[in-house]
Amino acid sequence: MTSPTDTRLCRTFQTAPAAVPKEDSAKYLVSGLEAEGFEAPDWLVPDLEDGTAPDMKAEGLENAIDRIPKAAFPGEIWPRVEWSYEDERARERGRSQIERLVGEIGDEIDGVVVPKVGRLEDVERAAAVVAAAESSYGYDDGSIGLAVIVETGRARSDLREIARFGERSRLAALVFGPVDYTAELGGRDLGDGRPRWDGLLEALSNEASAAGLLAIGGPFDDLFKERAGLTYYNADEYADQIEREARVGLDGSWSLYPKQTIQANTVHMPTPDELERDVEKIERFNEAKRAGTGAVTIDGQMVDEATFKNFRNTVETVRAIHDTRREQTAAYYDEELLERALTLEVSYE
Amino acid sequence: MTSPTDTRLCRTFQTAPAAVPKEDSAKYLVSGLEAEGFEAPDWLVPDLEDGTAPDMKAEGLENAIDRIPKAAFPGEIWPRVEWSYEDERARERGRSQIERLVGEIGDEIDGVVVPKVGRLEDVERAAAVVAAAESSYGYDDGSIGLAVIVETGRARSDLREIARFGERSRLAALVFGPVDYTAELGGRDLGDGRPRWDGLLEALSNEASAAGLLAIGGPFDDLFKERAGLTYYNADEYADQIEREARVGLDGSWSLYPKQTIQANTVHMPTPDELERDVEKIERFNEAKRAGTGAVTIDGQMVDEATFKNFRNTVETVRAIHDTRREQTAAYYDEELLERALTLEVSYE
Amino acid sequence: MTSPTDTRLCRTFQTAPAAVPKEDSAKYLVSGLEAEGFEAPDWLVPDLEDGTAPDMKAEGLENAIDRIPKAAFPGEIWPRVEWSYEDERARERGRSQIERLVGEIGDEIDGVVVPKVGRLEDVERAAAVVAAAESSYGYDDGSIGLAVIVETGRARSDLREIARFGERSRLAALVFGPVDYTAELGGRDLGDGRPRWDGLLEALSNEASAAGLLAIGGPFDDLFKERAGLTYYNADEYADQIEREARVGLDGSWSLYPKQTIQANTVHMPTPDELERDVEKIERFNEAKRAGTGAVTIDGQMVDEATFKNFRNTVETVRAIHDTRREQTAAYYDEELLERALTLEVSYE
Repeated sequence: MTSPTDTRLCRTFQTAPAAVPKEDSAKYLVSGLEAEGFEAPDWLVPDLEDGTAPDMKAEGLENAIDRIPKAAFPGEIWPRVEWSYEDERARERGRSQIERLVGEIGDEIDGVVVPKVGRLEDVERAAAVVAAAESSYGYDDGSIGLAVIVETGRARSDLREIARFGERSRLAALVFGPVDYTAELGGRDLGDGRPRWDGLLEALSNEASAAGLLAIGGPFDDLFKERAGLTYYNADEYADQIEREARVGLDGSWSLYPKQTIQANTVHMPTPDELERDVEKIERFNEAKRAGTGAVTIDGQMVDEATFKNFRNTVETVRAIHDTRREQTAAYYDEELLERALTLEVSYE
Repeated sequence: MTSPTDTRLCRTFQTAPAAVPKEDSAKYLVSGLEAEGFEAPDWLVPDLEDGTAPDMKAEGLENAIDRIPKAAFPGEIWPRVEWSYEDERARERGRSQIERLVGEIGDEIDGVVVPKVGRLEDVERAAAVVAAAESSYGYDDGSIGLAVIVETGRARSDLREIARFGERSRLAALVFGPVDYTAELGGRDLGDGRPRWDGLLEALSNEASAAGLLAIGGPFDDLFKERAGLTYYNADEYADQIEREARVGLDGSWSLYPKQTIQANTVHMPTPDELERDVEKIERFNEAKRAGTGAVTIDGQMVDEATFKNFRNTVETVRAIHDTRREQTAAYYDEELLERALTLEVSYE
Repeated sequence: MTSPTDTRLCRTFQTAPAAVPKEDSAKYLVSGLEAEGFEAPDWLVPDLEDGTAPDMKAEGLENAIDRIPKAAFPGEIWPRVEWSYEDERARERGRSQIERLVGEIGDEIDGVVVPKVGRLEDVERAAAVVAAAESSYGYDDGSIGLAVIVETGRARSDLREIARFGERSRLAALVFGPVDYTAELGGRDLGDGRPRWDGLLEALSNEASAAGLLAIGGPFDDLFKERAGLTYYNADEYADQIEREARVGLDGSWSLYPKQTIQANTVHMPTPDELERDVEKIERFNEAKRAGTGAVTIDGQMVDEATFKNFRNTVETVRAIHDTRREQTAAYYDEELLERALTLEVSYE
């Protein structure tokens, strides 16, 4: 999370197919829109790209236009459209999807997610398509945001330049797409899974942070595991992935499934222990500051402005979640601890 | 491997000293040229640089000119010449080696390998030397390729720019040189070997892929191991290294020795299990597509275009190897599996 | 270490608060200045930034001006001033601290350390402040150096450009600041410590090396550990960190404490075993060369110019330390081994 006080939350980037071959083809879209408690994602991403079969994309677009305005989804809505730096037809379909979405439900969506972007020029081209639709339908400049999936060698190569473009544009988030990325690079699964691309994740976190953008991890698609005759939700491996993402400062994780949303929402909020620890450290710091003994040492660790900023981040993230998802903070933290976190003085000066 | 369908194979980049102090000073060069089966590298690199002693370099050049045309080597031939971004005399020797090679056996070689390049300007300078020789002897522009060894801080710093130069030039491959690189950076072996430079390898794979170049790993020089009184070939540690390289999408590995070539050729081709798995997934995908149920799920994993591309990569790599090294695919895969791989329909649409 | 023969040593970058709330507020500064043997750092960094409490900074500046000239500190002195790319007041304080230091003790200091720099433009701004002070007080251009702490997303994003600025300016060192850096990126400690930022360290080592600058690791602030009722110095974890730094070619490590200085000085000098091993390899190489058998193989490993450079680095580092800290080399190495290292011929030609 780049700067918890003024940044939009995106602990969860949950994609939902806009149409599936079921009696109600909007089933998954609607259940995303109506999710409650920890199953409610910060961002819901109705998926018109790889999550919806080619022959259902038209119906998916109608579903999005029809169902999104009917729901009172409390978070942000960012449809994913079709696009590819190397396929003019995919870009053409994306252009027309963006026009329909902005024209019909421009008030209901926060932005669009554009996949398979290439170098900077291709990201600028996608931004221009959004700007044109926005202007056609009389929206203010910048009111429809842009998020891109970083899943090509070209986008990774231009990552710094793409992020800097975000400093002066509607680009708001960088999302990792490991499946396409691994395929583009020719990465191999020799029996122990895809490479983790640690260098890419570190760079994604850094460039997003330096440019004031959100950084989001990639999907984890081994949803289920079979062992000893039982098929069950693969909670452990997803948790491992999203904890790694949280550690290096990604703001949120991709979810494909309500249980993943529970986990990603949870991991990207401070644990009760972290909150307790950091609230206590700030309380002790505040006491020592009042006592006026100058440099403050807590548990053998010197507290300077930089150390302090780490403690403060924890508290400010909890405050931001509390602002928008009061039911989650209420369920997760002990009432008295939450009260301390909300009322604490958090200034180093 | 960047794009298995239109890319030259370089699973193995085998260097052979162009001259050694033996009765037949071309012994190792000739055995590289005459290698068969899995010992035959995709690229043979007659080495006029560090692999050939200073007092034997002149003889090495004559060996290369004399022996290469006599062999019917089925792969590509890329002599490594002398060069250094920081040594004018080394560049002068390199220039004259390139001129001799192009002038005398320009029809027999596919390109030259230039080591110890510095920043982009130095790579451009090397490319200009090749262009001048090519033009002097009447070869078409671009007919003699260029591969560079990335083994200096400067080349790593300019890696993205060097790779992009490859988009519009004869530069065809980026090869890692860990020994010089570690020495330049002042890296330390504290008893557990050289650093692995994971960040560099990830970047090498990405930049090569984004620019349509080949990416090749560095040499492994602990050829032998001694234990319990026996000296034996160090197969395990070399396999560990080249498997790491394959995982992050390097196209091939450096070989110093016929047994290494067997291993690198093997690791950079899909295992029978991988091939079986991906052929079966595509077969099941094709069936489900024919059945027309829309989005396809296999073993609890949704198959979209991106996932599909991974399966297809495996099959197309096998097809490319089969085109040029039929004896290797025949020996490695079960006949019936190979037949399925060669005849399968591999389109997502 | 970039190039041991012509580079200043900075195995240890030891910060000392310029003022602390004790009877003698210069206590830690003075003990840094008077340290002996392995406790004497290569660089002493009187800290006017986060290590000195806000209400003691004025006194810290006076302490620095008063005490530094009285000491005969044998290494280099680099005060750390206040600065921040995002805080004009911090930069104003830094400017006035730099002016006082250069004006009053410009002969005694080797440069200043500027923290929390942002993108290239901010580093250039800091360099201009030093240049202005230098010129005001009649010092030669470039006589006061600049080191920057890389601890913001922006500085990491511009790392290559910042390092290249060092090729043509007074910028001499890049120092990592992990606490602020982790906070800026929103990195999380989920119970197993801060992320290690391996990608950043690899890039820091590379860019510093490519531009001829020093690269220094970040502070380790868990100075003490408590176990089984005893509080004791945390030697193990600090050693783990600085060994990791040495492995990837950082020139030195940050020290907060005399015992850390002992460890960092030690790790960044070759171990007796390394020295023995590499001296012996060079001796055997020299013998083989005299015997004239051409390419030399030692213990199954071919020795070429690149391999040889690694052995030579070890010997040349020891020679550089011996030049400035004779008491350390005398204490650390066996007398006869040291003599061999000092007299050995170390040329590959």
